[in-house]
Amino acid sequence: MSPEFIIIAMSFLAILTAVFYTYRVVSIRVGGEGDTSPQTIKLKEITAAIADGAMAFLIREYKVISLFIAFMAVLIFLLLDNPDTEFTEGLHTSIAFIVGAVISCLSGFIGMKIATMGNVRTAQAAKTSLGKAFRVAFDSGAVMGFGLIGLAILGLILLFMFFTGMHPNVEIHILMEALAGYGLGGSSVALFGRVGGGIYTKAADVGADLVGKVEKGIPEDDPRNPATIADNVGDNVGDIAGMGADLFGSAAEATCAALVIGATAAALADNTTALLYPVLISAFGIPASLVTSFFARVKDDGNVEKTLKLQLWISTFLVAGLMYFVTDYFMVPEFEIGGQLITKWNVYVSLLFGLFGGMLIGWITEIYTSHTYKPVREVVDACETGAATNIIYGLALGYKSSVIPVVILVITIVVSSMAAGMYGIAISAIGMISTIAIGLTIDAYGPVSDNAGGIAEMAELGKDVRDRTDTLDAAGNTTAAVGKGFAIGSAALTSLALFAAFITRARSQSSEFNSIELLDPMVFGGLLFGAMLPFIFSAMTMKSVGKAALDMVVEVRRQFKEIPGLMEGKNKPDYAKCVDISTNASLREMIAPGVLVLASPIVMGYLFGVKSLAGMLAGALVSGVVLAISSANSGGAWDNAKKYIEKLGKKGSDQHKAAVVGDTVGDPFKDTSGPAINILIKLMAITSLVFTEFFVRNGGVLLNYFK
Amino acid sequence: MSPEFIIIAMSFLAILTAVFYTYRVVSIRVGGEGDTSPQTIKLKEITAAIADGAMAFLIREYKVISLFIAFMAVLIFLLLDNPDTEFTEGLHTSIAFIVGAVISCLSGFIGMKIATMGNVRTAQAAKTSLGKAFRVAFDSGAVMGFGLIGLAILGLILLFMFFTGMHPNVEIHILMEALAGYGLGGSSVALFGRVGGGIYTKAADVGADLVGKVEKGIPEDDPRNPATIADNVGDNVGDIAGMGADLFGSAAEATCAALVIGATAAALADNTTALLYPVLISAFGIPASLVTSFFARVKDDGNVEKTLKLQLWISTFLVAGLMYFVTDYFMVPEFEIGGQLITKWNVYVSLLFGLFGGMLIGWITEIYTSHTYKPVREVVDACETGAATNIIYGLALGYKSSVIPVVILVITIVVSSMAAGMYGIAISAIGMISTIAIGLTIDAYGPVSDNAGGIAEMAELGKDVRDRTDTLDAAGNTTAAVGKGFAIGSAALTSLALFAAFITRARSQSSEFNSIELLDPMVFGGLLFGAMLPFIFSAMTMKSVGKAALDMVVEVRRQFKEIPGLMEGKNKPDYAKCVDISTNASLREMIAPGVLVLASPIVMGYLFGVKSLAGMLAGALVSGVVLAISSANSGGAWDNAKKYIEKLGKKGSDQHKAAVVGDTVGDPFKDTSGPAINILIKLMAITSLVFTEFFVRNGGVLLNYFK
Repeated sequence: MSPEFIIIAMSFLAILTAVFYTYRVVSIRVGGEGDTSPQTIKLKEITAAIADGAMAFLIREYKVISLFIAFMAVLIFLLLDNPDTEFTEGLHTSIAFIVGAVISCLSGFIGMKIATMGNVRTAQAAKTSLGKAFRVAFDSGAVMGFGLIGLAILGLILLFMFFTGMHPNVEIHILMEALAGYGLGGSSVALFGRVGGGIYTKAADVGADLVGKVEKGIPEDDPRNPATIADNVGDNVGDIAGMGADLFGSAAEATCAALVIGATAAALADNTTALLYPVLISAFGIPASLVTSFFARVKDDGNVEKTLKLQLWISTFLVAGLMYFVTDYFMVPEFEIGGQLITKWNVYVSLLFGLFGGMLIGWITEIYTSHTYKPVREVVDACETGAATNIIYGLALGYKSSVIPVVILVITIVVSSMAAGMYGIAISAIGMISTIAIGLTIDAYGPVSDNAGGIAEMAELGKDVRDRTDTLDAAGNTTAAVGKGFAIGSAALTSLALFAAFITRARSQSSEFNSIELLDPMVFGGLLFGAMLPFIFSAMTMKSVGKAALDMVVEVRRQFKEIPGLMEGKNKPDYAKCVDISTNASLREMIAPGVLVLASPIVMGYLFGVKSLAGMLAGALVSGVVLAISSANSGGAWDNAKKYIEKLGKKGSDQHKAAVVGDTVGDPFKDTSGPAINILIKLMAITSLVFTEFFVRNGGVLLNYFK
Repeated sequence: MSPEFIIIAMSFLAILTAVFYTYRVVSIRVGGEGDTSPQTIKLKEITAAIADGAMAFLIREYKVISLFIAFMAVLIFLLLDNPDTEFTEGLHTSIAFIVGAVISCLSGFIGMKIATMGNVRTAQAAKTSLGKAFRVAFDSGAVMGFGLIGLAILGLILLFMFFTGMHPNVEIHILMEALAGYGLGGSSVALFGRVGGGIYTKAADVGADLVGKVEKGIPEDDPRNPATIADNVGDNVGDIAGMGADLFGSAAEATCAALVIGATAAALADNTTALLYPVLISAFGIPASLVTSFFARVKDDGNVEKTLKLQLWISTFLVAGLMYFVTDYFMVPEFEIGGQLITKWNVYVSLLFGLFGGMLIGWITEIYTSHTYKPVREVVDACETGAATNIIYGLALGYKSSVIPVVILVITIVVSSMAAGMYGIAISAIGMISTIAIGLTIDAYGPVSDNAGGIAEMAELGKDVRDRTDTLDAAGNTTAAVGKGFAIGSAALTSLALFAAFITRARSQSSEFNSIELLDPMVFGGLLFGAMLPFIFSAMTMKSVGKAALDMVVEVRRQFKEIPGLMEGKNKPDYAKCVDISTNASLREMIAPGVLVLASPIVMGYLFGVKSLAGMLAGALVSGVVLAISSANSGGAWDNAKKYIEKLGKKGSDQHKAAVVGDTVGDPFKDTSGPAINILIKLMAITSLVFTEFFVRNGGVLLNYFK
């Protein structure tokens, strides 16, 4: 069997699974036959408002993305147009870019669509039992999980077949370089999803809380709050479309990096099966994930969190076992890259380190952000002496929490590259997200459950239902922390793999880059400059949330003032207006950070050349990883410290007020600026990779001017 | 004239200046002849308590330091003992280390002694006029400023003469390497001064505020507050002894780095005058600073801040002009280092970039932390929506404020190394602190004025006096921000120079280190690990402040409860007990971060070898610089946002309460964790430099084990 056939078959398996789960979710009727009870009507109304808001945002966002894609496609075409060669690299990279971007958008669309259908059905199922509600939420998430990876590898393999079929005489490594455009496409959409989505969700959340909870004293998700629909839309926008695009980007980019590096090895370039090994890892992750999903069952008095975590462990061990055979069967016994002899078992070791490294990072994340453990308890205690000590302890916790993940990453990098060079790092990055179908299912499960709770509250489905959705939501919060750790870890490895691919490619064109000397002032200058980028990027996104939230506060206050009877529940607020404000703000506020991310590598490479650019990528990578982990975990810890204090029945106490300050600070930390750094480091690296040829040919103009 | 003679002469000039200023301060009598008014007695009592507290801390600290010095001296002796060579490098490095440490301690002692005499005399002079009070505070600072740099170069040149005189046949570069121990000695004391002092001062400050201002509602520096003496002691401990040791370290280390790198150039090794050029820069900075100090006059209705800033500008331009002649006269026309041909004017350019780069960084720091400008005003506005938005905006401000200083540093690094290679970077580092005598005078002026205000309040000298000391203090706050920017900038350049010296030295011993390849997994792993170190270091010091402050809170509460009539002013609090608590806490809490700083390079170098260590140093340097600037500026901005709101007369409003939260968070940021990072990056680099030979011979044992 050809590897292409296997990959296509597996992608169809994933897509069919997604279709099956879609059917399961959609076939549930909201309300019984002819049910026109006021409650059901309300339920439908609310759901429609959320779904409409989400789609409205997505359509607006995709309009902006279309313009952006068109612009980038032309830019790629122009900058990579090399009249000396017969192969039109610019055109092919452009095509790959467009395909990657469109598929990423499509995945996001499907994920959002099903999530906004799954939320109400989860709420309804929660009327019956916890187990049923769990399964609906899980199924909704699985559509995203399986659909995304299926489409991702299908698009990639079809492009591969198209390129190799059209150009049998072009060297394979040149084709793989053009294919890297696919990763850039996916990652560019992720910029919009993560940054725009992150601003959207937190502007709505913070805006809703500041007026609703703090000023008016009404509970979360109260239907009288005009921003409550926007808040629920935000969960979908940020955590489903954003997270999906982020991981789609990681998968596509890590695979492209592995293909580019692999194609420089003669033994792989000559053997399509071995060359496609990186794609085969993701492909065989699909059946492993499918088998895992059969175990996703919760009894009515069962432990949801345990079930979700078990999903992660089962899929990890299944993939680890399965890959033994995949590696043995598809990989060549040994090959050479850059003078290093690599056996297939070296490659397998790299894969294992990535796979289990990711699990460990997720586990550490949980220890630092769950209120079951000591770190968050310390933050809880710090709330007793006020908001200031809460902030100090929370920040210190975040900083500290980066130590073990960084050590795990360092070990993974060192071991996998000792085993299989730069190829090993790319493989370990793919290994870390080889269980992506399950990982993303669980990630998407979270906002669906969260929304279900919101809907249950707004439609007044009663305390029992709300308790059940709260149980689902609480488990989702824990796994969300794990998922964030995962996303950062995979972003780090993916960036490094892309960085390695970029250097590999630059070296293949000029021996000038055989050594990127750390102490070279151009490299070190780039390193220092790059280390600053995640900070300024964080500052931009944090302030954007602040500004957007302020817009929201003004609007919510206005509605409470101007709409008569709103507070008494006699009149309905104008939800759409708030959705509109979040949408506008997020699209407006993401321009500056977006330009920063895309322009930095291009300007740096053009003005100062490949070496400074390499330094910049390395600097942004190392400081970005630490800042991203810290931000995500500080935010998660503040959130859970507040929840724990509420659990102790101290809502409204001074300690709780101090905790609320931390939680509000943590919101943009954990859901906007932290995760957005993933995109920063990956997107800068893939941009460098795609434009390598341009930098090698035209880069360093400012340097040349002084010479 | 031999360069040694000139340097000794200049150091005597500095020391005599310090003696003269000491005389001017000490000759002022506290109270008139036979003045036994209750106010004067109170004044004397309070001052004695502060002075005793400061000395008690210093003596306790120096006891710990003595043990530490003895331990390190033995360690250096053992690790650098190479039986194959005739020259006993371990012994000589040990001697240099001890001399450096002792001189740093001595400088700190003198600075503290005079500051605790100057504070009361400033308060007393403020009874007469602003101009007089200013001059007393300035004179007190000048003792520290001139005394420190005089002792620093005197110690260095005497060691140089001793080494070269005793071993005329040993190659000069080996002697310079042993001399690097001097820098390590100074820097080790700075670890105690900055970290221990930083914890001390903020534990006292936060502890005093939390109970005094927040719980009891009594003003700052109220004599009824048991922690108020400790708070005033803390200003001296942190800002005088700590800052002094920090800059002493920078001066000694940057000079050692330049000597080590310079000694590898044949043209410099053969020409003692040219070799000693780095020391000559500091030496000629002394007369330039002395002339500058003549302009330090304030009229009674004058602008103190303007006068202080003018001091910085005058000294900078004087040094820039003077160095033109110094370079022309003492430097060889051209020499070669590592194949790069360097003229003396190239060296001068490096010096200028360092000199003006420092001024620019200081200026940018002011823009981001003074409430005259937009950034802090935005934070003020953010306080309107509560503590959370204040924190978000303040953190974002800090992150953003790193951009321009980083760009200035990058330009300085690139230009000075294009001009004069690694030697140029060391020279630019020295250039940045060549006006140290004035810089340190102004830095020390701040806490003296601050203390004077505290004493005026406690001794009830009246509103006029307090207003004058407040004017002095406000100007000191602004220049303190500038000084912090300066200290970070010089720490960055110094670390890079030390790093370069370390690599230069490693290369002279093994060609294996001719290339430190950025993408080498051992280097990159070190880079990522290193980037995490400033974060964990910050977390440790921030939490230490929190813990120590909590100890203080408990004690202050106890005294208010158990001492009858304390609140009514009928009974005196037990100040000494609070001083004791701060002392104990700071010495206890600095152990862990201290071990981290010193052990990291030694363990990394021993287990993983020189390349990983190089990566680690680079990673810590780049992420540390950004984090240090951010922390210092966020803290400064929060402080001034609060002050501005108070100035608007909104003390006690909700906006003010939100601002107080920011200010409290900012305290450990700007005075403990931020500045401590300077020490982290410098001390790790100098440790690597001193132990280079050990790492080259024995390093990488874990790697060798796997090979």
